[in-house]
Amino acid sequence: MMGFYDDIRADLLAGRWERGQRLPSIRAMAAQRRASLHTVVSAYGRLVGDGLLEAQQGRGYFVAVQGPLAAPAAPAVEPALPDDPLFRLLQAPPGSVVKLGCGWLPLPWRDTDLLARAIRRTARLGRSGLVEYGDIQGYVPLRQLLSAHLRQAVRLDAAPAQMITTLGATQALDLVARHLLSPGDRVLVDEPCNGNLVRLIRLCGGEPVGVPRRQDGPDLGFLDEVLARHRVRAFFCNSTFHNPTGAGLTPQAAFGVLRRAVEHDFLIVEDDVYGDFHPGGRQTFAELDGLERVVYIGSFSKSLSASLRIGYLACPQDLVAPLVRLKLLTSVAVPGFCERFVHTILADGTYLRHVRAIQRRLATQQQLTQKALRERGWRFEVAPAGGMFLWAGHPDLPDLAGFIEGLEKKGILLLPGPAFAVTADYRAMTRINAAHFSPELARAFRV
Amino acid sequence: MMGFYDDIRADLLAGRWERGQRLPSIRAMAAQRRASLHTVVSAYGRLVGDGLLEAQQGRGYFVAVQGPLAAPAAPAVEPALPDDPLFRLLQAPPGSVVKLGCGWLPLPWRDTDLLARAIRRTARLGRSGLVEYGDIQGYVPLRQLLSAHLRQAVRLDAAPAQMITTLGATQALDLVARHLLSPGDRVLVDEPCNGNLVRLIRLCGGEPVGVPRRQDGPDLGFLDEVLARHRVRAFFCNSTFHNPTGAGLTPQAAFGVLRRAVEHDFLIVEDDVYGDFHPGGRQTFAELDGLERVVYIGSFSKSLSASLRIGYLACPQDLVAPLVRLKLLTSVAVPGFCERFVHTILADGTYLRHVRAIQRRLATQQQLTQKALRERGWRFEVAPAGGMFLWAGHPDLPDLAGFIEGLEKKGILLLPGPAFAVTADYRAMTRINAAHFSPELARAFRV
Repeated sequence: MMGFYDDIRADLLAGRWERGQRLPSIRAMAAQRRASLHTVVSAYGRLVGDGLLEAQQGRGYFVAVQGPLAAPAAPAVEPALPDDPLFRLLQAPPGSVVKLGCGWLPLPWRDTDLLARAIRRTARLGRSGLVEYGDIQGYVPLRQLLSAHLRQAVRLDAAPAQMITTLGATQALDLVARHLLSPGDRVLVDEPCNGNLVRLIRLCGGEPVGVPRRQDGPDLGFLDEVLARHRVRAFFCNSTFHNPTGAGLTPQAAFGVLRRAVEHDFLIVEDDVYGDFHPGGRQTFAELDGLERVVYIGSFSKSLSASLRIGYLACPQDLVAPLVRLKLLTSVAVPGFCERFVHTILADGTYLRHVRAIQRRLATQQQLTQKALRERGWRFEVAPAGGMFLWAGHPDLPDLAGFIEGLEKKGILLLPGPAFAVTADYRAMTRINAAHFSPELARAFRV
Repeated sequence: MMGFYDDIRADLLAGRWERGQRLPSIRAMAAQRRASLHTVVSAYGRLVGDGLLEAQQGRGYFVAVQGPLAAPAAPAVEPALPDDPLFRLLQAPPGSVVKLGCGWLPLPWRDTDLLARAIRRTARLGRSGLVEYGDIQGYVPLRQLLSAHLRQAVRLDAAPAQMITTLGATQALDLVARHLLSPGDRVLVDEPCNGNLVRLIRLCGGEPVGVPRRQDGPDLGFLDEVLARHRVRAFFCNSTFHNPTGAGLTPQAAFGVLRRAVEHDFLIVEDDVYGDFHPGGRQTFAELDGLERVVYIGSFSKSLSASLRIGYLACPQDLVAPLVRLKLLTSVAVPGFCERFVHTILADGTYLRHVRAIQRRLATQQQLTQKALRERGWRFEVAPAGGMFLWAGHPDLPDLAGFIEGLEKKGILLLPGPAFAVTADYRAMTRINAAHFSPELARAFRV
């Protein structure tokens, strides 16, 4: 793999193809040089990152017209985590493969014109915002708008003083886990769940315990069994469009968890990053609890832009100062420019219009995807009406590893079920992102 | 304090002053309402943050012409860390006081036109960069440019593969400390040093031990005494224009520390965030060591913009994967837009021109400040030829607390020396930022 990238790079620098010329397709190149599709994908991706190639969606790869072709050959930039399947998924360049197992919306769904215009508008505003550290707790006008947004969307009364902006929801989860957890603390999580959450909890000294997620919410019977045996510090839980099952939360389930949280004295850390994909009145823990023992986390990475990394949390009053202090010590502040950008987008109604369009498309995609998969024998315990995710298996495939490998050869990337496990065996399952599904892909799912 | 802010806010919302009308000056308001200057400063600052007032530098405070005056009264947004002197310094709004003790350049020194133009240019580039997560280790073209920048500025051969972008130098320090330190590990730091570094090390379980900083570098005799008594995990050290003394590093001192690092097997974490303020060939640890046991940290917050929060580290090969994994787990990535922006600025030479102008201004300001203070009896062990900082005391003032309080009443903010201590007694010292000094301030330093 190292050899192939170097070979193509050397050819490029030696002028084998003209600037602007189209390179052989991934399949053709793989056949010509007897390399795997994955090797070619990876090399083309790196060469795009080097500025030597340009990827034109639907048309292929071209030798870059501008860029460092005349520069002295820089050493190859190796990916740091080559073995991590989520990492490989993240780093495969757009247009080279179908990232059917990823956790974000396709590039064509993003209104990049809107984003670019809003960026330019933001750059014309208050110049001190371009250079100063700003409010460490988070740009005040943004916190006020977020407070209004939550009041309207979630019927939650979160004062701006109880809100903190963060570098995406990930930093919010890290600040809370780092502050709350002592070594050995047991921490409940959904099962299945985001594998990086499990790793984060362990990093902070916690011991993750999975609670099976059903269509209506966490499995209360299982929860009672765990609580009978152990003390528990917190429950980190996705409320709306759970990752990876797409499950939601009924009022009864929310109340059931909250009641136990009061009785057994644990906190709920509610990750609602997919909440804005919900068209109507979604159920949250925070609404019932009013930020007594719930920390509510949201983000704009999924619905707007992962590149701007703006997330936020709303928390109980006594957690504000320690979390702000932790944010100050470890990162000082979130980029003020990005905060002002999100403020711009929220204040003029752009965000709401954008998100309603996404809600409608996701509903359509879910129907299309579920129909196509069901017709080919695939099964899913939860059939979501929206959001991105579908957690599926096939009764004839007790282990999907071979199937996933076969799909990779066809340029379709899925994550193996075990990537979402705490202790359960999910070899028979995989997460499908309905936003990336299309009728052409359906035949690949014939078993 | 709470009462005063509420009173003024209520008056504003009740229309006591017209939109665009100038409010009483801070002094006048303090006299009228029998409040302290600090109380008025703080309240005016919050009202600017609320969007109810506008600060016009040199002219005073005006009722905002646009903004939320018609909005329902939002609850007051209390600062989360009111007692922290550094926090108060950070949050006092620009133009309201002279932040003589702060750690950044004055707003008028920042070329915000340049920044705004570069932002708009960046927004026109690759649209996927506006939405995608991007390379988790850091935007590849930026890492390549940083590598070239370090080769030229510091004579350090750092491969892009050994570089990681971070949310400012603070996140770089946090990633390294969090990865390296086990509970109880002893960690050497300069003394005096940035108080937040001491807190960060403790947060990660480390035990900070101060090594006195002299003009040429860390005190090697003292270092030997510590090493004779204890095992040490790392030395977190500012190389160029040390904060707060302004001290540098001679080749002999650099080599002296590195030799001991090899002999006693500890790492050096070199914080060189003020390095680009140095006009010539500055000395670093990394240059001598070649990234064998040095982690080199840099940032654009001081020289360019704190609002964009772009920092970076270059590290030994075996630390790359663990640090990238930690970055992924706790923040996923630095905002790709901000990375592309810094790339734009570096690639077209704008950054270098901007930083040379700052170097010249700082040299002038240091001369001016040192002369004015020396004439009034102030003393400083290190007399830097550039950079921002001067660490000064007065033989007639064994404790500067009263003096600093008196300065605050005149609208000049300094940090007390103890804010920079590990265990030493610095009540007689304070840090002065020469960039914020002016001849008009000199009379306030008459003792």
